[in-house]
This record gives sequence, structure tokens and C-alpha cells, in this order.
Amino acid sequence: MTLSPEAIRALDAVSLTAAVRAGTISAVAVTEAYLDRIAAREDAVRAWQYLSPEQALAAARALDGRGARGPLAGLPVAVKDVIATHDMPTGYGNASYAGTRTVCDAPCVALTRAGDGIVLGKSVTTEFAMASPGKTRNPFDPGRTPGGSSSGSCAAVGAGMALLGFGTQTAGSVIRPASYCGVVGYKPTHGLINPAEVKVLAQSLDTIGLLTRTVADAGLAASVLGRRPDLFPVEPAGRLRVGLFRPAPFDKAGPGTIAALEAAEKALRDAGVEVAALQTPDWFIDCHLAHHRVMGFEVTAALAYERLSPQVALTGVTRDFLAVKEGVTAAEYDAALAFRDEHARRMAALMEGIDVLLAPSAPDVAPVGLDSTGDPVFNTPWTLFRMPALTLPAIRWQGLPVGVQVIGRRGADRATLAAAARVEAALACDWTAA
Amino acid sequence: MTLSPEAIRALDAVSLTAAVRAGTISAVAVTEAYLDRIAAREDAVRAWQYLSPEQALAAARALDGRGARGPLAGLPVAVKDVIATHDMPTGYGNASYAGTRTVCDAPCVALTRAGDGIVLGKSVTTEFAMASPGKTRNPFDPGRTPGGSSSGSCAAVGAGMALLGFGTQTAGSVIRPASYCGVVGYKPTHGLINPAEVKVLAQSLDTIGLLTRTVADAGLAASVLGRRPDLFPVEPAGRLRVGLFRPAPFDKAGPGTIAALEAAEKALRDAGVEVAALQTPDWFIDCHLAHHRVMGFEVTAALAYERLSPQVALTGVTRDFLAVKEGVTAAEYDAALAFRDEHARRMAALMEGIDVLLAPSAPDVAPVGLDSTGDPVFNTPWTLFRMPALTLPAIRWQGLPVGVQVIGRRGADRATLAAAARVEAALACDWTAA
Repeated sequence: MTLSPEAIRALDAVSLTAAVRAGTISAVAVTEAYLDRIAAREDAVRAWQYLSPEQALAAARALDGRGARGPLAGLPVAVKDVIATHDMPTGYGNASYAGTRTVCDAPCVALTRAGDGIVLGKSVTTEFAMASPGKTRNPFDPGRTPGGSSSGSCAAVGAGMALLGFGTQTAGSVIRPASYCGVVGYKPTHGLINPAEVKVLAQSLDTIGLLTRTVADAGLAASVLGRRPDLFPVEPAGRLRVGLFRPAPFDKAGPGTIAALEAAEKALRDAGVEVAALQTPDWFIDCHLAHHRVMGFEVTAALAYERLSPQVALTGVTRDFLAVKEGVTAAEYDAALAFRDEHARRMAALMEGIDVLLAPSAPDVAPVGLDSTGDPVFNTPWTLFRMPALTLPAIRWQGLPVGVQVIGRRGADRATLAAAARVEAALACDWTAA
Repeated sequence: MTLSPEAIRALDAVSLTAAVRAGTISAVAVTEAYLDRIAAREDAVRAWQYLSPEQALAAARALDGRGARGPLAGLPVAVKDVIATHDMPTGYGNASYAGTRTVCDAPCVALTRAGDGIVLGKSVTTEFAMASPGKTRNPFDPGRTPGGSSSGSCAAVGAGMALLGFGTQTAGSVIRPASYCGVVGYKPTHGLINPAEVKVLAQSLDTIGLLTRTVADAGLAASVLGRRPDLFPVEPAGRLRVGLFRPAPFDKAGPGTIAALEAAEKALRDAGVEVAALQTPDWFIDCHLAHHRVMGFEVTAALAYERLSPQVALTGVTRDFLAVKEGVTAAEYDAALAFRDEHARRMAALMEGIDVLLAPSAPDVAPVGLDSTGDPVFNTPWTLFRMPALTLPAIRWQGLPVGVQVIGRRGADRATLAAAARVEAALACDWTAA
């Protein structure tokens, strides 16, 4: 069977890897189809920090020459540039680290390759995965941010230049840019994908996330990278009780996000899913301060060298960001961790009888401008609580994608994926981008 | 004031840094005194993976030329070779990584330097801080292991070649070798010293620890590296209730360890400290299996590249170690984390009315031979529970040091240091080595 590049690119990861495993499509044909797309789109989107067509094609040729092929066979992958790769530079979006070589692959990369995925290159990150934007533009509108910090991976998948992107989330850096770029973003339970060899910001928060086209694709990748066979295949949940949650400060939700939530609620009800509006507790607003303090104390320690060494050049945005974080004391940090533990229990109690929460992914469509990557306000509480969350493209609002967020219990990633797949089916939002 | 090298080396870290800060001893004189000691002892002890007298002296000269000096002024430091240094290679005790350069310092190194400590070099680690021994020998007997994995740092401080060593503990790699080498080993509450830029084994367990000559020295270093001013000065606890704890399997305790515990109990009672023997609960033995499963699942992920890449050479000991760990399933891992959380609460309940536990640090004196670094059996439960622990030299048993372990509540590092200082004063064990 010879598929056209367009037909290859129309396949999701589940279908594509099955076809490559079965030998009905060659990994080289897949890689070439994606390299073609990159050639066509990269000038406008600027998702890639480092591209290696030769290495990708060599890996694809080696794969085509083998009999047995792994679960990610032929999958074109974008690796966020805060994640180590032994054969490509890792620059953290920082001028002083540009071109740095590591000796090893991060576990998520090593397991991708062991599963026969094809790493196309490194995708753009904001500086040290914080607030200072990279060069990437939104695939739906070059005048808008792709979001951050996983800008490049989200834009690459959104523009059809990769089928799997790695992101990292410390505040809202997987879910928010995925919403802006019209892709599925999956932030698993903290630690589900091993965090070694990723530039550390805040060890209690940093989570490796996955950018894909579908929920099932996210489950496939997570099952391999988390070494959890029970995460794939993803069976959409049958009976499902969804708690509609309007997190404080909800006045940050713009018209696109409100429309997305309403559309999701209606689609779920129409599909026979039970949706109950939950009362947002008074203490919820305090999650933001707790997150700030956990991140603040940890990030100023983790980036001690970068803060203190005159050998590292930092942008003004990063310096300002760190200056705010430096004010957090050890006592405030300890209290914030205690807050997290206590309120994670309260959150679990609130979810009694509920399978997942439905909540906003981002304040609205991607904001105009490239100086800011947007506001993670609808992501920090779930990151603080280390709960699994997915964003799914819900609607187009004035031509731009808006996601909704599905949030599950900590550790209940299988159930969360199953619920998200049911929501995805109800929404039936077209993913195809720009 | 001109002190002899011997007199300089007789100072503990608290006294030495105060003298350098006050300008009564120069940092260059300190560095030279320690380099002299290294020249005299290194051939026998082999604690150093990489030594940099020139860099150390340059840093000392720069410090002497400055007016304001930091809290670690002039402190000679050994950095375990799993911890990144921007100006010295980091090899993880592995042949394939030998000579690897990192762009940055780990936070603990950056904060050491910002505090005006002097990094003398990198100290030997077992391969990837696991079981395969390095070249280091016990400073009290070259035919015995220094313990692992923080072999070099423990031996360097034990032999008087450094005043502060960095270690890491995933099972028992700070406390056990410290006991074998006759030094104070402090494993703080998990995360107290930021773990970034340290080769990850098991993110839920890995803890940066400190090797020093005294408890007060450990408090000084921790206050700077943890950015917790309340950890120094260390005031020995006044009223103190100690729970004497004989962890299962206690039949692993040899005569040296039993004598050390008895000596500590007697010294404490003589000093008017209340000591109550606690009943070891039945479930305690299960901590070992839980630790094995947490470490097993995490380490086989974290070292995915090293396990899977043909480009990395591993010793047979490391391959065998990983092969055992590879058997742990995700379900066993999840259950082990749940066990940890539940039994951490039970452990806290058991300590009701008790300030700290007193327990063995290691099965006995350092074992004869260099093929094994000893058994972490008396360390893994406290690592699993992420509780702070210190080992203090308690007695000499047939000329060799044996420590006792003081274990505190998670997060209660200040109280744990204070209790340990009280135990230390009661024991009054001579630290001076070989």
C-alpha cells in the first residue's frame, strides 16, 4: 500500500504506528511526509529549535530494515528543548546554553526510541520553561502566542509537523499552550513519566506532558513512556459523572472559554453523560498563592547557578520572574506544602461520586501578541495537587481553538483518559489546523 | 595569627569559617593545609575522582582579596561525582561518562560557592550511586570498604581531607558510609537541599546529604544550602525524649552496632536524657519491600538510557542490580507508594511524645573487602519515609568507628539537629581518623 503524504499525515498516532508495525507504511515514508510538512510550515510557525532530518531518516531506515517493531513505530516526535538528547543539542531556550550537548537521552526520549518512535528534533521552549517567550508563533495565527513554555511542541503538533510532542508543566505549560494550539495536552499524575534529565524548575510540580492529536494517542504514548500497559488502549468511559467546575478567579474566563465550557456541557448532556455543577470552595483561590510559594522557593534553588553566575545571560523577563519568586521564604514554602497536602484531601472529598472535573484550560483563545505566552491561572491548582489533567479542543471561537480541561484523581490516569476520550467523542471537534 | 596546618585542620567547619570570615586565617592557608593532607593521604584512601588544587587555590585567593565573606568562607568541600560542576568533570562513577562536562553547577554547588566555600574536587561514587564500588578505601583500614555510594565524600572527611562532603542517599548511601568512616552523616528531610543537576536514581527517595565532622557543621551547611537560616546555629536540645528503636530485621545487627547502641543509650541516660525503648511494629519489616519497589520502578525508568543504549558500558554489578529492579511492576510501585503514605502516618503516631528515634546506622563496622559497599538495611525505611536522619560516631569497636542514627520527624530538621547535637555531646566520641 502506498499512501500519499497527505493520507499519511491524516493518520493519528494509534493508526500510524499500527500501520508501520504491520509494515503497510514505511517509517521512511512517514518521516518524509512529516519533513515535507515541516518544510512547508516551519517558516511561519518556528516551532523547532533544532531539526535533524538526517538523523530522523537514518532512524526510520534502520526501523524499516528490522522485523520486530515497537509500539511507537514510526511516530514523529518533537522533544522540548529542556529535555536531554544524546545526539542533539539541548539549550533550555537560553543563550548561554545554546548548543549544549548532553551525554545521554532523558528517559522519555530513551523509551521513545526503544519503542521505535522517531525523534525529528528539539522544539522551542521559553527560557528555562518560564515566562520569556521563544520564537514560535501560533499555527492558527502568526500574530498570536502559541502559549508557553511548551510552545514548540504544541505548535508542531497543532501545525501537523509532529504527532507527539513532549512538554513540561510547572504552572500551566502543557495545558494552556495545547488549548491555544488546538491539540490534546495531557499532564499525567506527577511523576508518571520519569522526570530525570529534564532541566528542573520545581521538583514538586514539574511534570512531563504529552501533546497529541487525540486522547487515545496520549494514552498510547503514556503507556510506553510510563511503562504502564493499562493506559492503552483507551476505552471511552461508559457511565460517567462529570463535575462542572468553575475555578476561582473565574472572572478571568473570557467569552471563548465560557463558550467552550457551555459547548462541552451541552455535548456531554446530549451524549447522555451526567454533568453536575460543583460549588467552588472558598479556599480554592488560595491554591494560587500556595502554587506561587512552592514554585518560588524551589525554582530559586533549582536555578541557583543561573541566578548567581555571571557566566549565564538571562533575559529581562526571566530576571523579573525570578526576582518575584526570590521573595518566598522557607517558612512560606513549608506552609504551602502543608496547604497542598491538606487541600488535596479536601479536593478528593469534593470529588466524591464524581469521575472527573470539567474546567477551563485557559482564559480564552490565544492572546494577540508574542511578548507574553499567556496566563496559567486555570492550571496552577491542578499542578499543585499533582492531579492528572487533559485539555481537548472543544470549539473554534472566531476561527481559533479553545480547549476544555478534564481533571482526574491523582494516580487515576486510566480513568481520566477514559473520561477524556468520552468527552472528546461527544465534542467531535475538528483538530485540523492552519 | 598564623596557625600551623595541623592547627587549621583541627578546626571544625563552624570555627574555621568564622576565622576565615573574621580574616584571622586566610582561605589560602586553609586550602593549602587541606591540599597537604590530601597529598599525604590520597594514595592510601583514594577518595578523589578529580582534584583541582589550582582551581581551589584560585578561589581561595579571590576570597582572601575580598572584604565581605560568606557563611561557608574557606570551607574545603568534596563534591560527590554524581553532582554537576561547571568547571570540573562529572562522571557518575561510570566509564562511559568519565570526563563529561556540564555547563552548570548543581544548586548545592552554586550555593556553596556563593557562600564562599572552596570546592577541592569531585569525590568518588559507586557507579551511578548504586552498588558497584569505586576505588576508595576506608580511611581506618585500607582492606575495608568505605561504604557506598558516597564513598569518596565520607572517606575524604573521615581522613581529614575535606570538612564538608556532599553525598546522596537513595537507600543508605549517606548514613552507612558515614558510620563506616567515622563522620557525621546528615540526610535531611527529602528535598531540603534542592536535588537539581544530580544524576537521578529514584526521585521519591534521592536525598542530598552532608558529611561533616560535627552536627553543628552539618547545621551550618544545611542552613546555607537549604536556605533555612533557622538550622544554624545548632543549639543542643535541652529536654529530650529519645525512642530506642530496634528496626527489623534486627538480627542483622552485629556486635559493634549493638555495643554502639548500648553505649549511646548509657551515655544519654547518664546525661539525664529520657530514653524509652519502643516496640518495633510488625509492619516495619515490610518497609524494605516497599523501598525496593519504589526504587526499582523509578531507577529502571531514570536510567532508561543507560540500560537500553549500547553506547553505555555498565559493570556486571550494576547490570545485576538493575536486573533485579526491572522486575517491579507499575502496580507494585503504586502499592508501595500507598504503603509509604499510610505507614508514614503510623510511624508519626508511634513517635507521639518522642522527639527522635535512636537506631543503628549500619549493621556493624565497615566490612572487610572492597567488592561490596555494605548493606543499607538500617537505612532504607527512613529513606522511604523521607525522614531526616543523622549518624554520629558513637564508639570505636576494635579500632573502627561505629555510628548511631538519630531520626526525626519529616520536616523537623531543626529539632532533629538539636537532638543529634545533644546525643553527640553525650557520646563525646573522638572523630579523628587514621
